[in-house]
Amino acid sequence: MTVLTKLHLEPQTGDALVIAAGQMLRIIDPLGEQVSDLVSFARDDTSEWLSSGRTIDYANTIYLTTGHTLYSNRSRPMWTIVADTVGRHDFLLTPCSPDTFRIIYGLAGHHPSCFENLATALAPFGVAPDAIPTTLNVFMNVEIAPSGELSIRAPRSRGGDYLLLRAEMDMIVGVTACSAELSNNGTFKPIDFELLSSDGGAARASV
Amino acid sequence: MTVLTKLHLEPQTGDALVIAAGQMLRIIDPLGEQVSDLVSFARDDTSEWLSSGRTIDYANTIYLTTGHTLYSNRSRPMWTIVADTVGRHDFLLTPCSPDTFRIIYGLAGHHPSCFENLATALAPFGVAPDAIPTTLNVFMNVEIAPSGELSIRAPRSRGGDYLLLRAEMDMIVGVTACSAELSNNGTFKPIDFELLSSDGGAARASV
Repeated sequence: MTVLTKLHLEPQTGDALVIAAGQMLRIIDPLGEQVSDLVSFARDDTSEWLSSGRTIDYANTIYLTTGHTLYSNRSRPMWTIVADTVGRHDFLLTPCSPDTFRIIYGLAGHHPSCFENLATALAPFGVAPDAIPTTLNVFMNVEIAPSGELSIRAPRSRGGDYLLLRAEMDMIVGVTACSAELSNNGTFKPIDFELLSSDGGAARASV
Repeated sequence: MTVLTKLHLEPQTGDALVIAAGQMLRIIDPLGEQVSDLVSFARDDTSEWLSSGRTIDYANTIYLTTGHTLYSNRSRPMWTIVADTVGRHDFLLTPCSPDTFRIIYGLAGHHPSCFENLATALAPFGVAPDAIPTTLNVFMNVEIAPSGELSIRAPRSRGGDYLLLRAEMDMIVGVTACSAELSNNGTFKPIDFELLSSDGGAARASV
């Protein structure tokens, strides 16, 4: 695989990129214990979006990892997880937002948030804030008790850990370095990305 | 409370209704072990929709029951659960769809589905199929193993059990009697609804 582009997100920021079918996106936690929210839309029609509900239903698990397919709301494959050095990500919760900090943290003033960062980054592509669904919260560690209660734990990622996704269609992708204290064990760190070329089955097998 | 309207859904069907803030919706399983998918949109702007991700995040549990608030994608309260004689509902999975039966059940031909029934019922209100998010799957019994794996169990509802929701805003509501074999312990039954007037705290207390 060839690295086509590198993207570095400073703490509590976000960005958007375009990916072609067959290309891969590596999401790297350079320092460890840092979450990155990801959402995507079909490039030719942003009414088609990454669906947590379809994905969890077809995978029959809430914890997605190597070999799983991530589906759109139209039940078409959007991503395949090609490699995963962590094995714990969340796909239940919406990106942290101004309302998250108001309702959960009890904050009155402004706080950076993944929702705001995604909305800003996706606006040039015609994606409205209302269209941002539940994100794939890469490296986020949510445990569920038998009672159903959630526990937000420190991410299991260590410096250099990554998730490698293959795009199954042309997409617009929104990504963040997450802004929520609870999700990132109390500190905010950067996130790195590599956009990789597709170069066939041999390269894939050597991942 | 006064019953304003009754609605009876035959097995494997769906419908839509309009509810005003303060009114209540009682979803009744008349025979037991039957799921009803529910979704809602703000009446004055269908870009605002019932959000599983926001709701689960703020409630800090995947199992919603009496006292919980169901939130929109804009983090505004849409519903309050006023009473719940069952205590087990799902808010993780998308409504069963033609793709569900193709991917999970391996069926080639047509099969009735909640997604198709919701799309048909919501179309006159200007809600596109692509805008149907994860539904509140009333009476659906999904257990999650520590590994994250899902188990679809028979609903815990018995004949006459119900969920009573108070509308916190004016909404368009899509509802079904679910069409999926696995979710309903192998048989398809009707679902009944009552739309109830709001008449103050005393009536609420006597629920």
